[in-house]
Amino acid sequence: MKPREIHHIGHAVEDIADAVATYERLFGAVAEHHETVPEQGVEAVSLRVGADRIELLRPLGEETPVGRFMASRGPGMHHVAYSVDDIRAALRDASAAGAELIDEEPHAGLFGLQVAFIHPSSVAGVLVEYVQVEGAVDG
Amino acid sequence: MKPREIHHIGHAVEDIADAVATYERLFGAVAEHHETVPEQGVEAVSLRVGADRIELLRPLGEETPVGRFMASRGPGMHHVAYSVDDIRAALRDASAAGAELIDEEPHAGLFGLQVAFIHPSSVAGVLVEYVQVEGAVDG
Repeated sequence: MKPREIHHIGHAVEDIADAVATYERLFGAVAEHHETVPEQGVEAVSLRVGADRIELLRPLGEETPVGRFMASRGPGMHHVAYSVDDIRAALRDASAAGAELIDEEPHAGLFGLQVAFIHPSSVAGVLVEYVQVEGAVDG
Repeated sequence: MKPREIHHIGHAVEDIADAVATYERLFGAVAEHHETVPEQGVEAVSLRVGADRIELLRPLGEETPVGRFMASRGPGMHHVAYSVDDIRAALRDASAAGAELIDEEPHAGLFGLQVAFIHPSSVAGVLVEYVQVEGAVDG
């Protein structure tokens, strides 16, 4: 059970309205969803650039996952998310292939998606998210 | 002249053979091109994951652009590249929209592509590359 394609790139920012305006102005991006999730410590906007997708993330505080990332690395790319047809099977296969899972089980992520993360130490320094794509459980 | 879509994600790594093996094993990636370009200070492999593309970059020394990035931030995502139909028009438009261009003119990048970079300070901390896609100058 391998990923199908890239679902989105996560981009950690300090000012989400400013970042949305930048993506619209420079790249013709179109905002898709906007959500603030206090329990995940993040405000997020999903943008489309053509058929592709950028997920802007603004930490709600320093002691949040994205806040800690920003404190150590500054604003910039935060993660790469891959679409998978069956997230439980994909996690089992990743683990069997030696990857260190941050999430053994999928959980509700932004925008109602079922997601799980793989530790960056398993992917040459890149935090990877798996996203279950809707209505596809035949993989 | 806006970008059409994401062309690739650049990923800076310490060991390129190891990173290729990781992408193959975890994500079913397929290597597309492999090139070492001493004048750019980099060894690079282009990988496909489904219809998407990852560009692995290994610096040939510390005093190279990717080497300096790795020294300050460690291995991880390095840039996002967007496909454009007319790179000169896209650079003019980005500049007119207030972006700081690293390259005023396109130049030969990896794998024979015409490319140019936009400074990360103009894109909320993300280094952006424009890539001229082949045979499209009608944009």
